[in-house]
Amino acid sequence: MSQTVSNPVTVEVTRGQLVESRHRGALAVVDETGKTICAIGDLARPVFPRSAIKVLQAIPLVESGAADALDFDDAELALCCASHSGESVHVKSARVMLMKAGLTEDDLECGSQWPQRLEDIAELIRADETPGALYNNCSGKHAGFLGLAKVLGAQTKGYVDASHPVQQEIKAVVEAFTGEELTEDVCGTDGCSIPTYGVSLTGLARAFAVFGTGEGLDPVRAEACERLYEACVNEPFMVAGTDRFCTRVMEAFKGRVFVKTGAEGVFCATIPEMGVGIALKCDDGATRGSECMMASVLEVMLETDDEQAKVLDDFVNPPVKTRVGFEAGEIRPSTEFLDALKAALS
Amino acid sequence: MSQTVSNPVTVEVTRGQLVESRHRGALAVVDETGKTICAIGDLARPVFPRSAIKVLQAIPLVESGAADALDFDDAELALCCASHSGESVHVKSARVMLMKAGLTEDDLECGSQWPQRLEDIAELIRADETPGALYNNCSGKHAGFLGLAKVLGAQTKGYVDASHPVQQEIKAVVEAFTGEELTEDVCGTDGCSIPTYGVSLTGLARAFAVFGTGEGLDPVRAEACERLYEACVNEPFMVAGTDRFCTRVMEAFKGRVFVKTGAEGVFCATIPEMGVGIALKCDDGATRGSECMMASVLEVMLETDDEQAKVLDDFVNPPVKTRVGFEAGEIRPSTEFLDALKAALS
Repeated sequence: MSQTVSNPVTVEVTRGQLVESRHRGALAVVDETGKTICAIGDLARPVFPRSAIKVLQAIPLVESGAADALDFDDAELALCCASHSGESVHVKSARVMLMKAGLTEDDLECGSQWPQRLEDIAELIRADETPGALYNNCSGKHAGFLGLAKVLGAQTKGYVDASHPVQQEIKAVVEAFTGEELTEDVCGTDGCSIPTYGVSLTGLARAFAVFGTGEGLDPVRAEACERLYEACVNEPFMVAGTDRFCTRVMEAFKGRVFVKTGAEGVFCATIPEMGVGIALKCDDGATRGSECMMASVLEVMLETDDEQAKVLDDFVNPPVKTRVGFEAGEIRPSTEFLDALKAALS
Repeated sequence: MSQTVSNPVTVEVTRGQLVESRHRGALAVVDETGKTICAIGDLARPVFPRSAIKVLQAIPLVESGAADALDFDDAELALCCASHSGESVHVKSARVMLMKAGLTEDDLECGSQWPQRLEDIAELIRADETPGALYNNCSGKHAGFLGLAKVLGAQTKGYVDASHPVQQEIKAVVEAFTGEELTEDVCGTDGCSIPTYGVSLTGLARAFAVFGTGEGLDPVRAEACERLYEACVNEPFMVAGTDRFCTRVMEAFKGRVFVKTGAEGVFCATIPEMGVGIALKCDDGATRGSECMMASVLEVMLETDDEQAKVLDDFVNPPVKTRVGFEAGEIRPSTEFLDALKAALS
């Protein structure tokens, strides 16, 4: 069996002096004119954007006027764009969103999930409870989908199906922002039961450049993007949770950056002050790989103060620890990856 | 940034019609004469064997007579070779092993760890307890190390240090079995605080061919290997736990196969009836990758009954499910990997 050509090693995991494991990946950075200013790896191969495009999936809710009709505030809009950790505030907020739409947890079709943190798991266990669908990391997004369905006058049951008006609206938005046609033959079912369509990383990066700058959008859509952007950067805890990448980075950069992770190693971002969108995927789907890649890109591109530099460094170079806390190694960007980023972006 | 040459894609993760994520890796199968009969990927690159060689690390305990002196039974010897899930029987057995050596949990230097299964975590939480070092997946191995230290008359404190007689004994065994020199410059600290030395996959596969066949060993060492092999295949639950790969495969094959997983995508095995040792690593460290690779090798090499075929298939082709249980995709060996295995091994 021969060795094969592949995406480059972007992230290394060391132990002692040895590189113990390697993550490969691809990355696109696109400016507001649609020009690719950094291209690493195979950018044509379709990827499922998964949860990384939740903010795009929330656009129909806002531009239709449904978010206003339902009186969703910033925190609730941020929860629409979230892969939250199932902490108390996330669960309560998703419940309130459903109440505002005249619905309940029973209307959610995303399935249940245990919270991410042991503390929150423990709280449920002590109360002798199991988590319902409100605890699903996508419950805010689904509450938004259900709210849109109600305001559109569509049936709420089956809102996760590709043929449902809510999913059709979302598909049209993602096509417009990526500039790519989404087709049934490159469509999978996401973990929360909605369709996820394959797109190129270039298309995804383009979509986030447009989202972050409003370039070429009609005023209503541009305003919807701005409202969602502001909601997320003003309420970053709602987008993820305690100690999570998206929360910590958006908190630290105080409105300068929007970042959103997705399952299987996808990560998207936009930096409006630089007019760029960023999209990447770690080939093997590892979050430790995609987080190190995204933090490395931001570190190369952004001027930072001490606090911002510290937050990025926590994700660019996290230690690999033993169970007694000794630092046995580290996760780090490969030299080749860092050099390519610097050559293209700094 | 250019694309680079790499190990081949061995495992694909699909969603709908698309390959969503890819794992790469390397594999060596070596026969009892030391001849490599299957070589995939870069086999010279040193890898840390981590927990995949716990059975080799237990050899000094047995061949020194310490295991007999401490009256360790099959289940306890199997626990010495285990990465257990921290289930009740594992924790109790590790405690008894320490008692037999006149020691307690406080002598363990491996650090603590929450159990793997939610049921066992819940039991601790309901009892308002946190897990001690007995719950560490390596606690049986460490109990064995401590028992050996006691019987050798060595200090128990510091038994995890590379310079301690226990670790020196283990190093000599691993050098003898792999046929490779273990050096300080390719040495890392394992998650449980003991040294882990870099070796080639060929050396690792050779070590497991020797372990499974006793080829070239003096009678005392050959008997120690046989005793450890029998302990693990007779008590496979002690080696891992509920629904785990190592437990299910060793249960199903009733003594025909020894398999052992390690952190960061390493997996080793021996099939004595075929006189072979197997060692592989998934480049990115993913267990879903290493398990699919090992199950694929066993499926190609072994004659199976229906139950054995079912167990292997559960790991060769596990479904990727949504949170409501819909099968959205699958994990599968790549065609290239399967073809290479069949060409070399069937």
